[in-house]
Amino acid sequence: MSKFTEFQKRFNFDKYTGFGNSANNQGDRLLGKDGNFNVERIGQSFFERISLYHQLISMSWSQFIWLIITFFIVVNLIFSLSYYLVGLNQLTGLETSNTLTKFIEVSAFSAQTLTTVGYGRINPIGNASDIIASFEALFGLLSFAFITGLLYGRFSRPQARLIYSPNAIIAPFQNMTALMFRIANGRKNQLIECEVTLLFNYLDKESNMRRFINLSLEYSKVNALSLSWTVVHPINEESPLTGLTKQDLEDMKAEIIVMFKAFDDTYSQVVHTRHSYTASEIVWGAKFIPMFTRSADGSATVLNLKKIGEFSPAELPN
Amino acid sequence: MSKFTEFQKRFNFDKYTGFGNSANNQGDRLLGKDGNFNVERIGQSFFERISLYHQLISMSWSQFIWLIITFFIVVNLIFSLSYYLVGLNQLTGLETSNTLTKFIEVSAFSAQTLTTVGYGRINPIGNASDIIASFEALFGLLSFAFITGLLYGRFSRPQARLIYSPNAIIAPFQNMTALMFRIANGRKNQLIECEVTLLFNYLDKESNMRRFINLSLEYSKVNALSLSWTVVHPINEESPLTGLTKQDLEDMKAEIIVMFKAFDDTYSQVVHTRHSYTASEIVWGAKFIPMFTRSADGSATVLNLKKIGEFSPAELPN
Amino acid sequence: MSKFTEFQKRFNFDKYTGFGNSANNQGDRLLGKDGNFNVERIGQSFFERISLYHQLISMSWSQFIWLIITFFIVVNLIFSLSYYLVGLNQLTGLETSNTLTKFIEVSAFSAQTLTTVGYGRINPIGNASDIIASFEALFGLLSFAFITGLLYGRFSRPQARLIYSPNAIIAPFQNMTALMFRIANGRKNQLIECEVTLLFNYLDKESNMRRFINLSLEYSKVNALSLSWTVVHPINEESPLTGLTKQDLEDMKAEIIVMFKAFDDTYSQVVHTRHSYTASEIVWGAKFIPMFTRSADGSATVLNLKKIGEFSPAELPN
Amino acid sequence: MSKFTEFQKRFNFDKYTGFGNSANNQGDRLLGKDGNFNVERIGQSFFERISLYHQLISMSWSQFIWLIITFFIVVNLIFSLSYYLVGLNQLTGLETSNTLTKFIEVSAFSAQTLTTVGYGRINPIGNASDIIASFEALFGLLSFAFITGLLYGRFSRPQARLIYSPNAIIAPFQNMTALMFRIANGRKNQLIECEVTLLFNYLDKESNMRRFINLSLEYSKVNALSLSWTVVHPINEESPLTGLTKQDLEDMKAEIIVMFKAFDDTYSQVVHTRHSYTASEIVWGAKFIPMFTRSADGSATVLNLKKIGEFSPAELPN
Repeated sequence: MSKFTEFQKRFNFDKYTGFGNSANNQGDRLLGKDGNFNVERIGQSFFERISLYHQLISMSWSQFIWLIITFFIVVNLIFSLSYYLVGLNQLTGLETSNTLTKFIEVSAFSAQTLTTVGYGRINPIGNASDIIASFEALFGLLSFAFITGLLYGRFSRPQARLIYSPNAIIAPFQNMTALMFRIANGRKNQLIECEVTLLFNYLDKESNMRRFINLSLEYSKVNALSLSWTVVHPINEESPLTGLTKQDLEDMKAEIIVMFKAFDDTYSQVVHTRHSYTASEIVWGAKFIPMFTRSADGSATVLNLKKIGEFSPAELPN
Repeated sequence: MSKFTEFQKRFNFDKYTGFGNSANNQGDRLLGKDGNFNVERIGQSFFERISLYHQLISMSWSQFIWLIITFFIVVNLIFSLSYYLVGLNQLTGLETSNTLTKFIEVSAFSAQTLTTVGYGRINPIGNASDIIASFEALFGLLSFAFITGLLYGRFSRPQARLIYSPNAIIAPFQNMTALMFRIANGRKNQLIECEVTLLFNYLDKESNMRRFINLSLEYSKVNALSLSWTVVHPINEESPLTGLTKQDLEDMKAEIIVMFKAFDDTYSQVVHTRHSYTASEIVWGAKFIPMFTRSADGSATVLNLKKIGEFSPAELPN
Repeated sequence: MSKFTEFQKRFNFDKYTGFGNSANNQGDRLLGKDGNFNVERIGQSFFERISLYHQLISMSWSQFIWLIITFFIVVNLIFSLSYYLVGLNQLTGLETSNTLTKFIEVSAFSAQTLTTVGYGRINPIGNASDIIASFEALFGLLSFAFITGLLYGRFSRPQARLIYSPNAIIAPFQNMTALMFRIANGRKNQLIECEVTLLFNYLDKESNMRRFINLSLEYSKVNALSLSWTVVHPINEESPLTGLTKQDLEDMKAEIIVMFKAFDDTYSQVVHTRHSYTASEIVWGAKFIPMFTRSADGSATVLNLKKIGEFSPAELPN
Repeated sequence: MSKFTEFQKRFNFDKYTGFGNSANNQGDRLLGKDGNFNVERIGQSFFERISLYHQLISMSWSQFIWLIITFFIVVNLIFSLSYYLVGLNQLTGLETSNTLTKFIEVSAFSAQTLTTVGYGRINPIGNASDIIASFEALFGLLSFAFITGLLYGRFSRPQARLIYSPNAIIAPFQNMTALMFRIANGRKNQLIECEVTLLFNYLDKESNMRRFINLSLEYSKVNALSLSWTVVHPINEESPLTGLTKQDLEDMKAEIIVMFKAFDDTYSQVVHTRHSYTASEIVWGAKFIPMFTRSADGSATVLNLKKIGEFSPAELPN
């Protein structure tokens, strides 16, 4: 009886998780390093796919700023062109005659209208330009209302920055071994009522299906994540990891999915993060080095987030 | 003993669900195709009924944009009229004398005030026009504050776009049959902690009441909806569907109500959707065709949302 | 043994509810008709007590609009006065000399600055007026940012408009009697996962304390409140109401507190409402008249909210 | 056997709480008086550490207002400088020649642009100044959009102002003693579904670790916090406090952590607050003086928040 058949027999249940278990059809890793599902969607319409608001909310700040500036310039050019189309005699107060400088003057008038500055030296004096200018100002205000909404959307989106140790370790634990990894809150936000769920998933080569098994934890809930939390899965007789070696895990294409949930006290919202460790990211025979110390004046605790992944070698019991 | 009496005897409990069970007084279908309750309310005042904010938030974007433009034009005309009423001699800088072009000039001045562009070539010079212009600018700013609030309200309203297979199917399942339907997330939002509740409801002809029975599920919760989820109600001896045929379901005016709940990780909010399948939307003897494949480079999974309803015929066990 | 002593003996437990139970110190009714606690707070500082944001969010729309207009006028007058204080020679473009019309002109200039219209006919030409005008424009913009925030706060505040029947009734129910009242959703919002808790509270004259007892319900949860929901507390041997008469309830100064909780699917938020029925609001020997009918075309259900409190007399079993 | 060893034996379990239990490395107090964790984080990048939005949302209103004014002045100066750099001949309408007053005029023009007032007496007339002015107006609008978002973020952040009695007391309670403290809602917000968790933590001198034990409560949940709530931990044989004296608690560096959770009905959000009492803040032999009275007209209850900490001496049973 092969080791896998034996493993299979001991854990013949498998949990339906929504991650899908048809190995043939799936990519190498269920969860990307950023905690997002490693899935592409097709068959949606263009608008469904782009999901404009989602993109505007989740792009980086520098992208967002450049997008606004580009939008401002493009809209400005379109309206400038409109004033040319109805004739520049419908604008009063233009001072220059050179083609380029005149174009800049018209664009400046357009920008003054779009931003509702409206100095008025240059101003519309014909019916067509009056109407265009009215709608340009309306368009400008609506755009800024839109941007205000987006800015608030960007601010208020709760983003737990939970820091995970880059590696999970197999460490000595109460006369046996345990799988451990360490997490800490990378922000000042107060995370309370924290909860971790661990899913072990591997490729069952006989059926060519991915299987999922819950890993039990020493503590799966903590009241508050004020310092670091070393999450511990004891490798006892109930654990599917009992008797498996580093090589076994690699052969099984094992991946350990971490799902973290907490209440963010600053934003008053529930936040979730996900992470996964593949077989190659599990270090055998190690223990974590403490990452907090007493502050110099003894009145507070200092948490050094850079140490989250630091471990020292440790001998494992047989 | 009729088939229904027998059915009734086996399932003589019924669950109170809040959908109401007085068949006489109810429409054909409890849940519209859009998942909203098939109910009209009367007896409210006009303002209660229109529920302005709700309508402004839930109308389509094109309707919303047209409404704003119409509002802008109407308000502009009202203020333009006010300037006529107090006399155009209270405005300085008007250039034209033709009735129509003068009217457009006054409207343009009004628009410049409403949008706070205020070029100033035309500007109020009498007390009455000064006061009107002050309030027009105030009104303009408040309107744009209002619109900004609405825009953000529209953005931030979480809308799970859960895609349901158009049909539920009766498929072979572990030596018996099962009722199945398939759902997938139509957006990029990450849906986690998903939960499905299934309610079978039918018309009890003897009492002329609608009855409700919960249908148990193979899995009623999944950790994450990253791919599609085939929801399975096994038709075993505990199932009220045991022994019923397509014709029976149609005679019973059966409707299967699906209630889906998940945590939307992008908006950090709980979302709910509802759907229902009537007897005519249940296909007997079918199985779903897989809707995901490995991506070309093998690194991710591709989910084809267009295939959500695709099934092939399958023979059912007796 | 008095009836109350007997009652007390049967229900000698009491539940701590947070409503407080020291009868001497409490008002007549724990819960006002609007569902708010009947409590005044003292001992807070002025600013803590006024709770500005809460008031601005919860005042009526007409009060809110008048407050903004008053604020606009007052601020405008203050800045107008400042321009007088630094000297009107620091403003260019004033046209009139009459004291009153000049004051209106200065106020109009101030309003043009506050709203950022800035026509520019009148404009600051000295250092002091330049600086005042700069800060007036800043103040104006910040005020409108503030108002925008308030407007959105007003919009997005979820307010379930749950309609309660004005009376609770004692109705015949399965060979015994039951306390019933009826609720319905007064808005289009979809309320799901609804839950009712009922607390009976009465004055224990011997200890002069208010006591609280939970009343069990036939159904305390419904999936959805699409039509009306008749909440039913069966008066069986476990009920504290067994054997009590209308007069008893009045003597006991009984009050039945209703706490309703639901998920508002439109705003994606949990909403709560409260209501209470005093002894005099309970009608003995009645049954509710149905409040929904089939729509004329038979395709939907029509819910008449005006009928929520309608009942007909009904004989009670002994 | 020392008293601590004995204590340790009776309570040899300890609860993992996420507060960390390595006494050597920790400060004097786990929870600051403001309810925040007494932790400093290091090892983050500058931007991660400052957490801009969090700071802008949580600073005081006066700091926030001064920050905006400072920002406005600094930005204004930078743009004023830019107009000098491209040459003042690119601005038309400047009236003064004195260096200082000219600088104020240019700054005023810049402020008029930044706030989009744009009177227009002074206005850009060259290409470079046209472009700078366009971007200054854009920058101004974006800044105010940003500030609008922040203002709403500040408003909508739910902040339960739960008032705790400054001291916990050891009071007589049903022939034994109990640890009590009192809480009340300092705002008008309606707090419902309130829940308290109590954690006793002390320094285990032998292992030099902080240990945590849950303290059971007479009532840990209340329906509503309309008046004050005296939270009671009965010191019975199950309590870790049995037999301990004030001196023992001080020797053990005991700290009692209070975690409070409620649903804020005004903001429709769950709120959490934390508090802690150190050994020196526990008063032995006291009872609380009631803090509510009937209002003068007898129709409501008056809650005097200033009395929250008032107690009178009380003899404790042996």
